[in-house]
Amino acid sequence: MSKSEPLFGRIALIGLGLIGGSIGHAVKRAGLAGHVAGFARSKETRARALEIGFIDSAHESAAEAAQDADLVILCVPVGALGPSAKEIEPALKKGAILTDVGSVKTAVVRDVGPYVPSGVHFIPGHPIAGTEESGPDAGFAELFDNRWCILTPVPGTEAEAIKALTAFWEGCGSNVDVMESKHHDLVFAIVSHLPHLIAYNIVGTATDLEKVTQSEVIKYAASGFRDFTRLAASDPTMWRDVFLNNREAVLEMLGRFSEDLAALQRAIRWGDGDMLFDLFTRTRAVRRSIIDAGQDTDAPNFGRNPTHAKSVSKK
Amino acid sequence: MSKSEPLFGRIALIGLGLIGGSIGHAVKRAGLAGHVAGFARSKETRARALEIGFIDSAHESAAEAAQDADLVILCVPVGALGPSAKEIEPALKKGAILTDVGSVKTAVVRDVGPYVPSGVHFIPGHPIAGTEESGPDAGFAELFDNRWCILTPVPGTEAEAIKALTAFWEGCGSNVDVMESKHHDLVFAIVSHLPHLIAYNIVGTATDLEKVTQSEVIKYAASGFRDFTRLAASDPTMWRDVFLNNREAVLEMLGRFSEDLAALQRAIRWGDGDMLFDLFTRTRAVRRSIIDAGQDTDAPNFGRNPTHAKSVSKK
Repeated sequence: MSKSEPLFGRIALIGLGLIGGSIGHAVKRAGLAGHVAGFARSKETRARALEIGFIDSAHESAAEAAQDADLVILCVPVGALGPSAKEIEPALKKGAILTDVGSVKTAVVRDVGPYVPSGVHFIPGHPIAGTEESGPDAGFAELFDNRWCILTPVPGTEAEAIKALTAFWEGCGSNVDVMESKHHDLVFAIVSHLPHLIAYNIVGTATDLEKVTQSEVIKYAASGFRDFTRLAASDPTMWRDVFLNNREAVLEMLGRFSEDLAALQRAIRWGDGDMLFDLFTRTRAVRRSIIDAGQDTDAPNFGRNPTHAKSVSKK
Repeated sequence: MSKSEPLFGRIALIGLGLIGGSIGHAVKRAGLAGHVAGFARSKETRARALEIGFIDSAHESAAEAAQDADLVILCVPVGALGPSAKEIEPALKKGAILTDVGSVKTAVVRDVGPYVPSGVHFIPGHPIAGTEESGPDAGFAELFDNRWCILTPVPGTEAEAIKALTAFWEGCGSNVDVMESKHHDLVFAIVSHLPHLIAYNIVGTATDLEKVTQSEVIKYAASGFRDFTRLAASDPTMWRDVFLNNREAVLEMLGRFSEDLAALQRAIRWGDGDMLFDLFTRTRAVRRSIIDAGQDTDAPNFGRNPTHAKSVSKK
């Protein structure tokens, strides 16, 4: 893709946090747009985004940012998507593509759909990428490289629009998959939403004990606990909205998880070592598959830099 | 510590996997022993350990390896500690220190205690270090650097022996803490055993679904799931033994976890966003404390090398 012929003349980013910022950086890296307009509610965030340079212009209203844009990307928490769409509705130009980056998709169709003017192509999207950081300084151009981005177009969406949005995400470094929104929500309930819920829960449990102090939990976290704290440090607003908006699928997966956990509990209580050994052997193979699929590093301990421990003073 | 005056004349490693191997490497690095004798049940493991060079001599029986040793370290799964102790009992010399590296400690006192000859100093130990790898090739000298090692001596243990074992672990790079075995088992039930159980469980649940395929789980694992697969790839024998030997503490922590999870489930079902938001905000601070304590990296995504994704082919 040549920098002299951008895919889109004008792109609007509504929301300038980790994802909005990373899209801005990726657009600049590949020259995907003639102009990137940005909106965030906070004046400080807008100023910081301009200063970092991942947007070309900052706007005080979402509608103003979306005006004349060929591609509008809603990068706000799922609960704010409906209000954002309502606000920009009058500003959207005919032929524009409207998309989002929310982690749930059926609720997005429900909340954004009513505010899509005729002639505007609404294609829900979900880049499978992120870190536990948030805010305009958290973004970087490589976030989407070799990650998946899922589009969940409603039936009847123009093929040309899907093609253009696919090219956009490929330009950002992603591989693109298309699936139904309902299936998306079920898949991500198990691979993303339940893992986050479990992580939040165990961190809550571990810091609520009487017989074990919080300082002991922190001091000995390297023995397993710390792996959960990364997910449990993710953005609270974003994740509250995910659980409120993918309730059915999350409750279904949570029900299965709890059933399985009750069976493990019973095996421990009754000393059924074979049942434990069989499960622990089976799960080991799954990590190998994930590494082989290029979805995680094969370095022990995630390749954590051992030097992080240097600040611990010797007793 | 000078290489010309080793802490111990002869050290015996009973078990030559990740931990035994790493101890051997650390002993060599710091010159902590005049001679390192090793035993493993498998002939291949013994040969490999000699070839790598983290032991000086390999022995076909644990008793032979322990003969004349000043320090004997049992590096076998918790379930094998009793039989190993029984086997080496006649070979232990007066004044020797006997220790282990098991993840539970009350059961070790119960299982090993009966086989400790009078005049031998038995001090249970637990280095808080490891990776998801196992076997003689998995070890490395830096594994214990700036990690904690916990000793749980029974009342009446000679102070000089505790001091010598403390110096040994410090020589391996560790910081040493002393606590009661019962308290140890409660602390590690929450910071280590429950996290592993939850990780094994969710990986099992995720690979047992009808509506979501295993290939989808693997493909989109980067959205959260993959973080759990590392712990769930840990050694099955070791972890079976941990759960069978720390039953009460694990069941207590599991009960609390399940209660808390039921409350979260209810909040999701009834749309209680404030409850979710409050928990998610509180848990975020815990990660910060762990990073400040030098127990994890502050690099986003654990500092995973982004290049691991390069093997994914573009569609």
